[in-house]
Amino acid sequence: MAGKVWFEDLRVGRRCAAGPLRVEREEALEFARRYDPQPYHTDEAAAQDSVFKGLAISGWHTAAYAMRLVVEARPFGATPILGLGVDELRWLLPVRPGDELRLEGEVVELVPSRSKPQGVARVRYTLFNQRSEPVYGMVAIHIVPTRP
Amino acid sequence: MAGKVWFEDLRVGRRCAAGPLRVEREEALEFARRYDPQPYHTDEAAAQDSVFKGLAISGWHTAAYAMRLVVEARPFGATPILGLGVDELRWLLPVRPGDELRLEGEVVELVPSRSKPQGVARVRYTLFNQRSEPVYGMVAIHIVPTRP
Repeated sequence: MAGKVWFEDLRVGRRCAAGPLRVEREEALEFARRYDPQPYHTDEAAAQDSVFKGLAISGWHTAAYAMRLVVEARPFGATPILGLGVDELRWLLPVRPGDELRLEGEVVELVPSRSKPQGVARVRYTLFNQRSEPVYGMVAIHIVPTRP
Repeated sequence: MAGKVWFEDLRVGRRCAAGPLRVEREEALEFARRYDPQPYHTDEAAAQDSVFKGLAISGWHTAAYAMRLVVEARPFGATPILGLGVDELRWLLPVRPGDELRLEGEVVELVPSRSKPQGVARVRYTLFNQRSEPVYGMVAIHIVPTRP
């Protein structure tokens, strides 16, 4: 994975993986207080009484951890990772402080540009916890340059 | 907006708004180093040479700021905000340190559950910068309880 990967090098079904990465309690509380200040993310007692039945980290913190693991997984080798957006982002199960997350990715669609030296690669990423339960999924829309 | 809003109270076209919220440079660098450590988010010189032509904050930091503004916009009044996921998440323009972001939201679809005392509300959220340019959009899939 040391060299750059160009759009022509990609194939549907190409896979990547990274992790595990541990969810730290203080980091989760700090993220939630700053970006998602709702009781089931910031207050243990309130979280026990909520649908989450205990402290759950912000779904956007889960998304941030997923990005960290995408960077580590290097889906295009040394080629920078660029995203136009994401479809089908889903929070499947609560993520708890202490959970260990790992990422799997698979290229699901490749569409060359007609006008630019690049293509769009759709990659489905799934995060799993330490019990191998899927907790989060998304289909990222990456721009990948063609060979210069 | 003080009371709870139930699924029956919602109408397609209902709007909410929040902001502005200023993007702080140190916070952007800290977020990128932790969750999205790529040169165009963490290194000013490398960012100048990239497609972003200057430091751009992580797209997932933009998403986190959007969530903060969703919490402030209180789309369902005092009813907690629950999300199953997001469709059509798009990064439209780079967000820079110093930018001032504001959020607009609009209910675009309401689907009652057949089996549970709740419904799904799809809300399209758009973030604008200080020049009123849209920089980010998403359609959030919220669960909203019906009146008890």
